[in-house]
Amino acid sequence: VWKGTGALKFSEIGEFGFIESIKDECIPSLKDVIKGIGDDCAVFGPYAGRFFLFTTDMLVEGIHFLRDRITPYQLGWKSMAVNLSDIAAMGGRPLVSLVSLAIPVQTDVELIRTLYKGMKDICGLHKVNIVGGDTVASPDALVINVSLIGDVGEHEVLYRSGARPGDKIYITGTVGDSAAGLKILKNEIVPPASMSSHFIKAHNEPRPLIHTGKAIAASRVASAMIDVSDGLLSDLGHICKESGVGGLLFRSKIPLSSELKRLASVANFNPLDLALSGGEDYLLLLTVPEQKTQDLELLSKGKRPFPLYLIGEIAKGAGIRMVSDDGSVEVVSPKGFDHFIP
Amino acid sequence: VWKGTGALKFSEIGEFGFIESIKDECIPSLKDVIKGIGDDCAVFGPYAGRFFLFTTDMLVEGIHFLRDRITPYQLGWKSMAVNLSDIAAMGGRPLVSLVSLAIPVQTDVELIRTLYKGMKDICGLHKVNIVGGDTVASPDALVINVSLIGDVGEHEVLYRSGARPGDKIYITGTVGDSAAGLKILKNEIVPPASMSSHFIKAHNEPRPLIHTGKAIAASRVASAMIDVSDGLLSDLGHICKESGVGGLLFRSKIPLSSELKRLASVANFNPLDLALSGGEDYLLLLTVPEQKTQDLELLSKGKRPFPLYLIGEIAKGAGIRMVSDDGSVEVVSPKGFDHFIP
Repeated sequence: VWKGTGALKFSEIGEFGFIESIKDECIPSLKDVIKGIGDDCAVFGPYAGRFFLFTTDMLVEGIHFLRDRITPYQLGWKSMAVNLSDIAAMGGRPLVSLVSLAIPVQTDVELIRTLYKGMKDICGLHKVNIVGGDTVASPDALVINVSLIGDVGEHEVLYRSGARPGDKIYITGTVGDSAAGLKILKNEIVPPASMSSHFIKAHNEPRPLIHTGKAIAASRVASAMIDVSDGLLSDLGHICKESGVGGLLFRSKIPLSSELKRLASVANFNPLDLALSGGEDYLLLLTVPEQKTQDLELLSKGKRPFPLYLIGEIAKGAGIRMVSDDGSVEVVSPKGFDHFIP
Repeated sequence: VWKGTGALKFSEIGEFGFIESIKDECIPSLKDVIKGIGDDCAVFGPYAGRFFLFTTDMLVEGIHFLRDRITPYQLGWKSMAVNLSDIAAMGGRPLVSLVSLAIPVQTDVELIRTLYKGMKDICGLHKVNIVGGDTVASPDALVINVSLIGDVGEHEVLYRSGARPGDKIYITGTVGDSAAGLKILKNEIVPPASMSSHFIKAHNEPRPLIHTGKAIAASRVASAMIDVSDGLLSDLGHICKESGVGGLLFRSKIPLSSELKRLASVANFNPLDLALSGGEDYLLLLTVPEQKTQDLELLSKGKRPFPLYLIGEIAKGAGIRMVSDDGSVEVVSPKGFDHFIP
């Protein structure tokens, strides 16, 4: 039995407090480490002109998913997708993956094979090889850990830390659909059945934007990039913090899907709340110096077109402010979600 | 709720049966994948003359460890050590690691910081950087997943599959101490307290043989190598299976520590049983063509000396036979341990 002092519980300091407290001494050899803890992927190298990207995500039953809200296929797909999205956020190309599973002994083999099929299908789309892993028994919860290696040209990699005052803020799609899907799955919104499937799919089958991320990185137009996993405000907050800047968001420019607007009017909620604070859209959020915005807009209409919305501007200082069409300004803070903090 | 056919449970097919059944379609792009599922590490590359090695291990509370049998520091140390040992088995150099932890919310932060200290200390010894990871809440069990990347010269890498009839079989230390430690921790052996600590330490604080593995690989004397994690018979069985050969073991040559011999006489058991079937010694088991055995023996007595025992010989055919001093031969099969199979 482990005896601690009991002075501090995870429920008090949360994930981010803990990570801050163990960062020291993690890098005994600076050689080749370009970026350690604190971005979407770790970065090391270069090897023959390319950096390697390294990321991992753990999904735990009862915390990240429930068996009555996602199919085994979707769970496999999503557990790989969230890692692919981390590679996309750095502008990288995913290469090889390892999959660790802790499986309750009485689980149906067929269900876990279906889960694997979801992983293999999304890996097949992106030519990612599953080269091994670890399969162990679990006393209780199903646990999935995916690790993924990718690479990126050493002059193309995009960090959270490159945003500068005056840079424009763009996002590559409409936000909030995934969060609406989660609310529907939790019965916090109960729309007509015909409206639900769009949102549930957005939540359970995210599409990581590998091609878009690579194209943006290769074009060298962006100063910083992140994927929208924690929520638009949180993730813009990460860029601002790592870059030492503040952000202005234009309230009327936050892009909402027509489906979300319709759902909001039927179910009587403000869709902007979900768009700003809901997570797991797995879009790309990027900042672009003024003189390169035209290149980005041309790229978005080019051979591999992608949605693109100008939603704000990087400013001096810190924190995020929201500007309304009438010119009024409001300070907004991300509702930081932390699994450890009740 | 997931509905399967219920036709097949993990408790029936086990880990290895499951892995066989999902191997297909894991490698959509053969480019750069040298070795996928089925060795100590996955191998990909080369990049500038070196292969990358990629491995992962998941440790689950209640399955792989219990809080009253290992300290937090030892658990951190061991969870990293088992991955380092996989890199050692390929002759590689470990580089960067990601750590995923699922932590019960009410856990003392101090205990997990101590666990991290164990990881950082062994990483420091081997100049391995912990470059990130994922820290999440767990409803129940503590789960640790470590992923590790290493590299190795493309002409130095050692697989399980290179053993040829006539090759000599060597092991780099005495076997069975870790298994004795586990039996003591489980109260299956109850020796005088003064005798216990050696074995418990062998079990809870394994020392991965990175330097020895690298020296063996660089000297190009071995035809195959593996680390002894499942047990001597099991791991020799892996080499034999992957190489398409059989093995002869010389009963009287299996090296036992003086501590194990003494414990066996006090507690009245056959130490050879633990040496053959007990796991987690994290030694290196290698095969060496006859004409290179002298080079290996010189290497073991060189600048960085290491223990070395000749314990057998690779033969044609399949399976493992044990040869006694009187010339009698007995077929032995590894008692394959599978967490899923009762």
